[in-house]
Amino acid sequence: MSTLEPVDCFLDQNGARFVEELKEFLRIASVSADPARRSEMRRAAEFVSAQLTQAGLQARVVQTEGHPIVHGEWLQAPGGPTVLVYGHYDVQPPDPLEQWTSPPFEPTVRDGFLYARGASDDKGQCFTHVKSAEAWLKTTGRLPVNMKFVIEGEEEVGSRSLDHFLAGNRDLLKCDVAVISDTSQYAPGIPAITYGLRGVLACEVTLHGPNRDLHSGVFGGSVANPCNGLARLIAKLHDDQHRIQVPGFYDDVVPLTSKERKAIAALPFDEAAYLKDLGATSAWGETGYTSTERRWARPTCDVNGLFGGYSGPGPKTIVPAHATAKITCRLVPNQDPDKLLPAVERFLADNCPPGLRMEFKTFHGCSALVFDSESRYMHAARRAIASAFGAEPVMIREGGSIPVVATFRDVLGVDTLLLGWGQNSDNLHSPNERFTLADFHRGTRASAYLWSELANRT
Amino acid sequence: MSTLEPVDCFLDQNGARFVEELKEFLRIASVSADPARRSEMRRAAEFVSAQLTQAGLQARVVQTEGHPIVHGEWLQAPGGPTVLVYGHYDVQPPDPLEQWTSPPFEPTVRDGFLYARGASDDKGQCFTHVKSAEAWLKTTGRLPVNMKFVIEGEEEVGSRSLDHFLAGNRDLLKCDVAVISDTSQYAPGIPAITYGLRGVLACEVTLHGPNRDLHSGVFGGSVANPCNGLARLIAKLHDDQHRIQVPGFYDDVVPLTSKERKAIAALPFDEAAYLKDLGATSAWGETGYTSTERRWARPTCDVNGLFGGYSGPGPKTIVPAHATAKITCRLVPNQDPDKLLPAVERFLADNCPPGLRMEFKTFHGCSALVFDSESRYMHAARRAIASAFGAEPVMIREGGSIPVVATFRDVLGVDTLLLGWGQNSDNLHSPNERFTLADFHRGTRASAYLWSELANRT
Repeated sequence: MSTLEPVDCFLDQNGARFVEELKEFLRIASVSADPARRSEMRRAAEFVSAQLTQAGLQARVVQTEGHPIVHGEWLQAPGGPTVLVYGHYDVQPPDPLEQWTSPPFEPTVRDGFLYARGASDDKGQCFTHVKSAEAWLKTTGRLPVNMKFVIEGEEEVGSRSLDHFLAGNRDLLKCDVAVISDTSQYAPGIPAITYGLRGVLACEVTLHGPNRDLHSGVFGGSVANPCNGLARLIAKLHDDQHRIQVPGFYDDVVPLTSKERKAIAALPFDEAAYLKDLGATSAWGETGYTSTERRWARPTCDVNGLFGGYSGPGPKTIVPAHATAKITCRLVPNQDPDKLLPAVERFLADNCPPGLRMEFKTFHGCSALVFDSESRYMHAARRAIASAFGAEPVMIREGGSIPVVATFRDVLGVDTLLLGWGQNSDNLHSPNERFTLADFHRGTRASAYLWSELANRT
Repeated sequence: MSTLEPVDCFLDQNGARFVEELKEFLRIASVSADPARRSEMRRAAEFVSAQLTQAGLQARVVQTEGHPIVHGEWLQAPGGPTVLVYGHYDVQPPDPLEQWTSPPFEPTVRDGFLYARGASDDKGQCFTHVKSAEAWLKTTGRLPVNMKFVIEGEEEVGSRSLDHFLAGNRDLLKCDVAVISDTSQYAPGIPAITYGLRGVLACEVTLHGPNRDLHSGVFGGSVANPCNGLARLIAKLHDDQHRIQVPGFYDDVVPLTSKERKAIAALPFDEAAYLKDLGATSAWGETGYTSTERRWARPTCDVNGLFGGYSGPGPKTIVPAHATAKITCRLVPNQDPDKLLPAVERFLADNCPPGLRMEFKTFHGCSALVFDSESRYMHAARRAIASAFGAEPVMIREGGSIPVVATFRDVLGVDTLLLGWGQNSDNLHSPNERFTLADFHRGTRASAYLWSELANRT
């Protein structure tokens, strides 16, 4: 493949510049959940659009009712397949801030890692595809495939605007396959293709007690306490085997086949190292499953935040007026979030302790999915990754959720190649998020190879 | 009692000034729990000392390792009894700030109520004794009894400095009886003397899970969640009858006698109005007891604050690193906080869910007590209140705790007259704390009468 040589050469010569440009991207505090960050969101979108334009694509910032979407395309490969690259420029909130070694929006390189909020999820990973397109266009004047880019700003808060955009632009976004780099390699040195994802449902439950914070001496014992009551309610969500108690919760779960359990068991996994990294002393989770099965193929019900009453220094002797829990459930095929959200609400309402009033809010949800791991797109990705990383990728599932993948299947009718360049240890959604610079460069190269492999129909 | 006439007249003529001076006191944001308020604490102590001096007592601000204590005295009634007046110039934190109609440290009169943090608890109430002493000294040049004042700044955070001060100054503070106005009337129009108080123990439990906030998709299901775990732990504190499950918790509880239960039942109590005021739809609490019994004579275990993980807007898909509950138990005679704190800690440790590590902190504790309601001091107080309020006081117990009362009994060997001028509806420890101006004036008058009634040994 002689056309790869100039591309390879361009990647080698421009790698350092790519990192500086990524840092510029990471300095923009594009926290989609924070209403105070609207101008940063806009700046991040404009940055991506300018990068695509500079690479040689046609690009624009599309206004939405929420945060803008960046759309780009290069469609001059008639007869060639069309690839839709998706990514997101929004990031998770950075708190707890005091746990960051360097500030979340001041990208810093230490020991071969680039540290910043969004370094891996997803600014750093989606940037590899922008740069691989640039490498092709700057060296050969063309791309091996037709390419479309959709980079959104609401991935961390439910992708509502993207859903509208996709539904209203089916023709514009028509493609043969989608590509997303928002997952991880299996482990350092073991690249992976993700063929399955968990889904998610998110909600918030608030228990209201007295109409104001009350003196716990004067009134305590004669009035239901929302903090105690919320604890009782949350405690009912699981039994002692960590099985979720919402009626019907497991009804639609497709059990793991023995073939898949064997394949998962065959993957190298150092449980001791895994636990040590998390600071855990022993494995934990639903009875009857391994740690990897629990993460990839079993549902969860996690409280993500708990708050009510006084949280300052010292004691404060009150019965608080209300208490809240933020809850997300991870889902597996074929659980339906639209069926389970009402089931969760009903379970919580049925178990709401006496004397308290429940308020329930729902956020985004999406279903889990599993793709055919033997499709020709999967094989093209295997070859590209094997060449760039020097190692055959393993086929894995992933515990996280990428709602847009289900949307692509439902709205555009395509499979998605989930090609993760990062590591599980990159502290996604945590303080000190990072991206290995070597992975950034290998990922960019694998991306460049992928375009020619996808064009190769043999 | 002809000497009462000029005192009465002085109170009538100076009432409006007293209110302005109280407002000045309330403008000082003396929040003892807040380390940022040290200078306000100092200013509040100096204000009290200046008020006592201006009234005609000898007064000084005593440095401590914590917040200063104000000490004052007038000892020119040889052969007369010595009365120790205790109060506190520190206040509860004002949050949640957004629920205040007028700012907590901008005292505001609306509809006959004075609104401010500390209006009732305890700046407003203890100020009545300063002003009654002033009335006697300015009109007759003397007081009917020897008087000592101790006004501290750590009541809301455990009175540690006061305990040292009392232990080191037994002779200085020697007295026949103590007087505290930090309780409430039974109801509007029904003044009361409080002959019993609940005790309290306070602690904080934190459950630690992973060593950082984790992505709930990547890791969820394979790692113990501290929020879910804390909920399970807190839920175990009570059974369905709201009985506390800590082993031995009720062992030393003195049951209510049938005589006392009858006396409590005989007090006027409009349960519907009580519940409506709290925003509750039905009575709630330990099976087998009335609302009043639950508040005055049964122990509690209330969570005062619950926090862990994400509390901002929208969802955040993490497994948090830790979660915390602030807990206080109200105690009744003869429960011992020094015995029960370790029992609570042991119960929590024994029930700590697998995969989580427990951290335990303790704050202040004090035992409950009940005084002889037929002592001559009690009778003197009854007469003074009946004259000033125009109604016989009822004898009540109180759900709150005033740790210093136990200290006075143990260190100084005296009973305390608990004479509350405020109302249960004064929003103590809550937003919109207030004090009825009429109660402020009646309380000041009852205080002035009390000094002569205590001098009357017949």
